[in-house]
Amino acid sequence: MKKKTRPRKRRRKNLGSVPGTMTYTGSKTEQEFYIEVIDFSKEQCSRTVYNDVKDVFRYAEEENTTWINVNGLHNVEAIEALGKYYKWHPLVMEDIVDTFQRPKIDEFEDYLFVVFKMIYYDEERLVTEHLSLLMGQGYVVTFQESKTDVFDDLRKRIEENRGRVRGEKSDYLLFVLLDAVVDHYFLVIENLGDKIEDLEDILFEENDVDISKDILNLKKEILRIKRSVFPAREIINRIEKTDFSLIEEHTRNYYRDLYDHTIQVVEYVEVYREMILSLMEMYMGTISNKMNNVMKVLTVIATTFIPLTFIAGIYGMNFDNMPELHGKYNYFVLMGIMLVIFIAMLLFFKKKKWL
Amino acid sequence: MKKKTRPRKRRRKNLGSVPGTMTYTGSKTEQEFYIEVIDFSKEQCSRTVYNDVKDVFRYAEEENTTWINVNGLHNVEAIEALGKYYKWHPLVMEDIVDTFQRPKIDEFEDYLFVVFKMIYYDEERLVTEHLSLLMGQGYVVTFQESKTDVFDDLRKRIEENRGRVRGEKSDYLLFVLLDAVVDHYFLVIENLGDKIEDLEDILFEENDVDISKDILNLKKEILRIKRSVFPAREIINRIEKTDFSLIEEHTRNYYRDLYDHTIQVVEYVEVYREMILSLMEMYMGTISNKMNNVMKVLTVIATTFIPLTFIAGIYGMNFDNMPELHGKYNYFVLMGIMLVIFIAMLLFFKKKKWL
Amino acid sequence: MKKKTRPRKRRRKNLGSVPGTMTYTGSKTEQEFYIEVIDFSKEQCSRTVYNDVKDVFRYAEEENTTWINVNGLHNVEAIEALGKYYKWHPLVMEDIVDTFQRPKIDEFEDYLFVVFKMIYYDEERLVTEHLSLLMGQGYVVTFQESKTDVFDDLRKRIEENRGRVRGEKSDYLLFVLLDAVVDHYFLVIENLGDKIEDLEDILFEENDVDISKDILNLKKEILRIKRSVFPAREIINRIEKTDFSLIEEHTRNYYRDLYDHTIQVVEYVEVYREMILSLMEMYMGTISNKMNNVMKVLTVIATTFIPLTFIAGIYGMNFDNMPELHGKYNYFVLMGIMLVIFIAMLLFFKKKKWL
Amino acid sequence: MKKKTRPRKRRRKNLGSVPGTMTYTGSKTEQEFYIEVIDFSKEQCSRTVYNDVKDVFRYAEEENTTWINVNGLHNVEAIEALGKYYKWHPLVMEDIVDTFQRPKIDEFEDYLFVVFKMIYYDEERLVTEHLSLLMGQGYVVTFQESKTDVFDDLRKRIEENRGRVRGEKSDYLLFVLLDAVVDHYFLVIENLGDKIEDLEDILFEENDVDISKDILNLKKEILRIKRSVFPAREIINRIEKTDFSLIEEHTRNYYRDLYDHTIQVVEYVEVYREMILSLMEMYMGTISNKMNNVMKVLTVIATTFIPLTFIAGIYGMNFDNMPELHGKYNYFVLMGIMLVIFIAMLLFFKKKKWL
Amino acid sequence: MKKKTRPRKRRRKNLGSVPGTMTYTGSKTEQEFYIEVIDFSKEQCSRTVYNDVKDVFRYAEEENTTWINVNGLHNVEAIEALGKYYKWHPLVMEDIVDTFQRPKIDEFEDYLFVVFKMIYYDEERLVTEHLSLLMGQGYVVTFQESKTDVFDDLRKRIEENRGRVRGEKSDYLLFVLLDAVVDHYFLVIENLGDKIEDLEDILFEENDVDISKDILNLKKEILRIKRSVFPAREIINRIEKTDFSLIEEHTRNYYRDLYDHTIQVVEYVEVYREMILSLMEMYMGTISNKMNNVMKVLTVIATTFIPLTFIAGIYGMNFDNMPELHGKYNYFVLMGIMLVIFIAMLLFFKKKKWL
Ligand SMILES: [Mg+2]
Ligand SMILES: [Mg+2]
Ligand SMILES: [Mg+2]
Ligand SMILES: [Mg+2]
Ligand SMILES: [Mg+2]
Ligand SMILES: [Mg+2]
Ligand SMILES: [Mg+2]
Ligand SMILES: [Mg+2]
Ligand SMILES: [Mg+2]
Ligand SMILES: [Mg+2]
Ligand SMILES: [Mg+2]
Ligand SMILES: [Mg+2]
Ligand SMILES: [Mg+2]
Ligand SMILES: [Mg+2]
Ligand SMILES: [Mg+2]
Ligand SMILES: [Mg+2]
Ligand SMILES: [Mg+2]
Ligand SMILES: [Mg+2]
Ligand SMILES: [Mg+2]
Ligand SMILES: [Mg+2]
Ligand SMILES: [Mg+2]
Ligand SMILES: [Mg+2]
Ligand SMILES: [Mg+2]
Ligand SMILES: [Mg+2]
Ligand SMILES: [Mg+2]
Ligand SMILES: [Mg+2]
Ligand SMILES: [Mg+2]
Ligand SMILES: [Mg+2]
Ligand SMILES: [Mg+2]
Ligand SMILES: [Mg+2]
Ligand SMILES: [Mg+2]
Repeated sequence: MKKKTRPRKRRRKNLGSVPGTMTYTGSKTEQEFYIEVIDFSKEQCSRTVYNDVKDVFRYAEEENTTWINVNGLHNVEAIEALGKYYKWHPLVMEDIVDTFQRPKIDEFEDYLFVVFKMIYYDEERLVTEHLSLLMGQGYVVTFQESKTDVFDDLRKRIEENRGRVRGEKSDYLLFVLLDAVVDHYFLVIENLGDKIEDLEDILFEENDVDISKDILNLKKEILRIKRSVFPAREIINRIEKTDFSLIEEHTRNYYRDLYDHTIQVVEYVEVYREMILSLMEMYMGTISNKMNNVMKVLTVIATTFIPLTFIAGIYGMNFDNMPELHGKYNYFVLMGIMLVIFIAMLLFFKKKKWL
Repeated sequence: MKKKTRPRKRRRKNLGSVPGTMTYTGSKTEQEFYIEVIDFSKEQCSRTVYNDVKDVFRYAEEENTTWINVNGLHNVEAIEALGKYYKWHPLVMEDIVDTFQRPKIDEFEDYLFVVFKMIYYDEERLVTEHLSLLMGQGYVVTFQESKTDVFDDLRKRIEENRGRVRGEKSDYLLFVLLDAVVDHYFLVIENLGDKIEDLEDILFEENDVDISKDILNLKKEILRIKRSVFPAREIINRIEKTDFSLIEEHTRNYYRDLYDHTIQVVEYVEVYREMILSLMEMYMGTISNKMNNVMKVLTVIATTFIPLTFIAGIYGMNFDNMPELHGKYNYFVLMGIMLVIFIAMLLFFKKKKWL
Repeated sequence: MKKKTRPRKRRRKNLGSVPGTMTYTGSKTEQEFYIEVIDFSKEQCSRTVYNDVKDVFRYAEEENTTWINVNGLHNVEAIEALGKYYKWHPLVMEDIVDTFQRPKIDEFEDYLFVVFKMIYYDEERLVTEHLSLLMGQGYVVTFQESKTDVFDDLRKRIEENRGRVRGEKSDYLLFVLLDAVVDHYFLVIENLGDKIEDLEDILFEENDVDISKDILNLKKEILRIKRSVFPAREIINRIEKTDFSLIEEHTRNYYRDLYDHTIQVVEYVEVYREMILSLMEMYMGTISNKMNNVMKVLTVIATTFIPLTFIAGIYGMNFDNMPELHGKYNYFVLMGIMLVIFIAMLLFFKKKKWL
Repeated sequence: MKKKTRPRKRRRKNLGSVPGTMTYTGSKTEQEFYIEVIDFSKEQCSRTVYNDVKDVFRYAEEENTTWINVNGLHNVEAIEALGKYYKWHPLVMEDIVDTFQRPKIDEFEDYLFVVFKMIYYDEERLVTEHLSLLMGQGYVVTFQESKTDVFDDLRKRIEENRGRVRGEKSDYLLFVLLDAVVDHYFLVIENLGDKIEDLEDILFEENDVDISKDILNLKKEILRIKRSVFPAREIINRIEKTDFSLIEEHTRNYYRDLYDHTIQVVEYVEVYREMILSLMEMYMGTISNKMNNVMKVLTVIATTFIPLTFIAGIYGMNFDNMPELHGKYNYFVLMGIMLVIFIAMLLFFKKKKWL
Repeated sequence: MKKKTRPRKRRRKNLGSVPGTMTYTGSKTEQEFYIEVIDFSKEQCSRTVYNDVKDVFRYAEEENTTWINVNGLHNVEAIEALGKYYKWHPLVMEDIVDTFQRPKIDEFEDYLFVVFKMIYYDEERLVTEHLSLLMGQGYVVTFQESKTDVFDDLRKRIEENRGRVRGEKSDYLLFVLLDAVVDHYFLVIENLGDKIEDLEDILFEENDVDISKDILNLKKEILRIKRSVFPAREIINRIEKTDFSLIEEHTRNYYRDLYDHTIQVVEYVEVYREMILSLMEMYMGTISNKMNNVMKVLTVIATTFIPLTFIAGIYGMNFDNMPELHGKYNYFVLMGIMLVIFIAMLLFFKKKKWL
């Protein structure tokens, strides 16, 4: 194997640092940083955007339920200030800005910390976004690298007071946030299913398109989706079963429903994984089959004409004494013999079903 | 890979909506909507068909056991009205009309909610139908997209008072309903087994039929069957083991028997899955074997005649001085030499078992 | 895929019937029906054959241990009468005559119900026989489709008072019956091992035998054996661990020993399954290797002679002015050149190790 | 498939016999039978060899710890006499002489019964030896088919009072015996690793050696090793966790250490299994790659010369009127054209990277 | 298979020895032996290097937390002396110098014993280093074969009093040591990912590079990484869950975080393993596809010209009476016919999409 590694940069910039050190490991350092606050109770609802993290602190004191949505993980200082105000654990702070952190849930005495991955297709390219959620008495704080449209519907629902969010506490707010993410998983999965069907169509209809690269790429997409999506199942299950006091009894039904959806996501991914494996197998069968057909054509033609050409070669020789050459009808007799051989050959191949 | 995606419609129409929103996600919107009610006790039995959901409410009050069979999930309003009357949870209502909902069981305080999939072959095409069952004190309500013949036998059995249904409560009614669905699974599985045997026959008997597409399609059918059928096992097991008060002790024997049947279904599907994998493998072996035979014919013929043709070519050259051409018997000597070479070649291939 | 399904009959005749309905689902309807009773205590032993089921009832009353062996499942009425006399559950009765019932164990208050499969080779064909065993205070009743020789040894042992059966109760009688069946499994497995070794021998010794069909058939046999044999392990384990009062403490040692044997059976089947997979893989390797060799012969011969033939063709052309043709030794010079080319080719192929 | 089964003998001679019947199922019936007794305490140690089993009985009475090593399982009577003296269970006695018995542990009230397999390579052939160990108060009795060198080191250690055995009880003696067997497993595994590396070397260095048979044989060896070695892990774990009174607390550390080693053995076997699978896969890739190269040579040569030969054939025709033949330089012009075609072909193949 | 085993040395030198015997099983016997001691409290920190083990004993008495880092496992006597001073179990001592010991954790009354593997790439070669850690009241002792740079950062952090180590006890010191090792795992994994991407690039871009050897080598690297890395997950989990008194409550959060990282490592290894499998599969597809293309070129050229050459051969025969030869335009007519055949052939192949 020839060396051809282009110099690659270290990806995990936080290796070897002091545990609890906040290092943003993503690449979106040019984003605008802002904090969107949606503060609501049954009766009223306000939505404000701030750029300074200190303006947000006051929401911790009041009675309403507050969704604080922080956009831009590169502003480590601001996030650290928020975390210190809320007294979150340093390891939590580290994970909020570590985009390599896998989905997980950590339970602390007075707050829950959830890491999720948002996935979507951006012009055929699968994108994974790091999402952290912190839920405590009266608040859910979400952290994301940049604005996505996953929560757009939800935002409107809260403002227009559709659904039950306005009348519920932060445990239900956490649920609807996670529910929005999981609903987005289905979009990715439908897209994936379409791609597989396209490949199948190509395999059956067109000729000689090399789809092995596409299959490999789909496999890699499925591996990435699995890694983002499968842990979600266990996380939701743990929220539903937890004895954490802020999760109220009647909200558990909703988490159970969400759990159901995560199972469905997992099932679909597994099914598509098996289908991709079958596709590759079928592709191999198709290639072999085609080669077989090519070989048959070559064999039929070559095998039929090579002996005839030899015979013609015999009578093209220049020996002085070749008595066969001199009979008046010998040429025609030979042509007849060749025809018989030719037809016999064809019948032989017909019998072998090669024709 | 060339883009050839035909525009596809979004399949899951309920993504992003408020949890508990009822959205019919299937495609059977032109069906007639009607409710069939079979109301029975040990002594009597009535069967009535209604189109207005309000006519059905009165059955909730009386003492008999009632099977309310709702046909047509597109009539979301009627189903919602029924659900409100019976006070079922909004998430249950959502799942009744969500045909993507996977099989599951949810236990509530005074009712059980079961989602099952009916599967059958409709002219060689595998069809999956969404079926929801709600069992409470004195009633079982079933919801399906359109009329199927899965429950025909059962309906007759109740009316003719065959079997034990008329003398039992709603827990036994739920059992016979699920039993009818599971019995139908076996029909699908027998059909699947026949298809696999057909493919095997083709593989061994006929020549050169490309069955890789059929194999792929069977694999996809098996994946779909698995998804519908495998959860049934766990669901029945949970009903048998539940401490839900409406399931009486002596009925558990029947659920245990049904559980046994679901295990059998799962086993068969697994066996057929393995057989399909073997079929594909064998198909590959068959192709390779055939190509081998084609190659041998080509090689034997080409390898035998090519050197002979070369020799003939030699004596077809027009050099002035080629002494061999002038002997009286040289032509015959050469023909003899060629014959010897020819026979030696044949013996060589005979020894190699290529002939 | 061309349709070529021969019309197939429905196999499971009991689908859709009332739960507890006895329907014989096998095909041995022409067997003689008879009941063999072996009644024994430590001191005495009698063996009698009856055709009428009512003659057997009296054995239920007396003190001895009785083995009632019913042959012929098609006589549903007789079996039903026996079941009613012993008060077995209707679902048990259904399973006794349902040859599709998988191996299982059901514990009732005063009897155990065990379904097992006997397997044996009948002239190279693998046969599965349905066997039901009911064990209660003082009796074991066995039901089989037709007489097999699995219990012949055991019958003699009881009559000749060899071993401990005569001194033990029905729990030990059940053990020796199951032990006889499991011992038979080993015969099947030895047969299977022989078949695999035969295939291996063919693969390594003979040339060009297409064994893919044999491999597929062996795989299918293994799938059938698995289905019959694997559940036995769990069943025996449950008997050993049960708190069913009729299983005495000192008999558990024997069930533990039997459990050990079922594990061994399972292990062998797994090993043979892996070996069959390897065989198929090796077969593919062998085919590819052979084709490689065929190709090399073709390539060496064709590649050596085709250029030479071209040269001969050049000097067979009839141009008026071809100076090379007229030198006195040019023919010999050309022959020399051709020889050099020929030898160079051979050396080239030698270096490539194709010769 | 042609029948070519050489008549094979029944291997399991104990099938169908009365449970508890002692039947030696191995083939080493010509061995000398003898019993080696090593009797020791902290202060003294004696080693004696007996041929009569009755001479051994007296060791049961005295205070020392005794290792009784019985060689030769074919002497069923002697072993039975020993078993009766020690009051071991008949099923234990059966398993001592049943070489097909898989590794296992049975706990009885006052003794432990362990079956292990010793494995080693005897001139490249993998040999499995049946080993039974019975440990009770003051004794360990081992049974093996014939003398092996597995315990030689241990014997010396006891006599020379190295290590802790002399100062410990029978629980530690059992440990050092099992430890010696497990240490031997590592030798087999190192041997296996060497074989795999050899195959790899062949695959990468030499040309055209068919190693599929070697791969198959290695796979079969691994299957046999797995069957002997994997159960050891669970057995040691159970000894360590047992509440059997004779296993003292401080000895458990040693069993834990041994357990660690069995895990390591299992891990190595799994790793080698995966490597063998990869080897076969790579072998297939290698074959395909080679065939590709063969095909390319054929194609380049044939494709280049076949059109040229055709052209030469044209001008070898004998038509009266072929004007091209008569120009003075036409022959040289044609030769030039052919050269151009030839070079164009080579450039084409160069571009395709076939040259 | 030809024997070509180069004589290989026994690798595990400690087989068959007395349990608890210390035998260094590695190969680094020429290293310098030294002990580095970092002794610290919140206020102060000293770092000293010793060559005599006795100089280290005094650290056991004082109050500070001490990290004793022993380099060079070949100095078995020194290590034994240290072990005796600290009263560690002989089996622990054996494992410290046994480089074959797999990762594990053993809990003793007053100390924890952890075995880990450090892995890193040394000029493209994957290196595994044996690391033992002993943690007790006030100390952590680490043993490694030779100096690595895994702990360099950590050493500096302690001396410069960055992070929390200086203010914590030995439980946190153990954590930061293990954390440093696990962080190093990620470096290996990134390297592995780069290698896979390189292979992918080669597969898609360049032609005809045989990468099967590279794939095999990557597979073997992954197997080795798995063996070193996977047990780490379980070990960290056990430290977090242990009730060992020295692990304080607030430190468990850190072990939980570390556990999270080990899961991530495991996930990546699994993903890369699947990708390698897919690569091999794709490589096979690529080869088959290429061969198909080669065959098509051969078939098109050969099949087109072979019949034409035959026709030319006919008219090159020397029969006296071949009327076709004498017509004035027959040569041109024949050339025309040949052209038609030629074009027909091309159209045929065009239709088959072989051109
Ligand atoms: Mg860190
Ligand atoms: Mg990521
Ligand atoms: Mg992290
Ligand atoms: Mg991740
Ligand atoms: Mg939802
Ligand atoms: Mg739902
Ligand atoms: Mg929703
Ligand atoms: Mg569906
Ligand atoms: Mg839903
Ligand atoms: Mg579904
Ligand atoms: Mg049923
Ligand atoms: Mg499932
Ligand atoms: Mg049943
Ligand atoms: Mg039924
Ligand atoms: Mg059957
Ligand atoms: Mg049944
Ligand atoms: Mg069955
Ligand atoms: Mg037995
Ligand atoms: Mg036994
Ligand atoms: Mg027996
Ligand atoms: Mg054996
Ligand atoms: Mg046995
Ligand atoms: Mg065994
Ligand atoms: Mg050891
Ligand atoms: Mg150890
Ligand atoms: Mg040792
Ligand atoms: Mg190592
Ligand atoms: Mg060790
Ligand atoms: Mg290791
Ligand atoms: Mg860390
Ligand atoms: Mg973390």
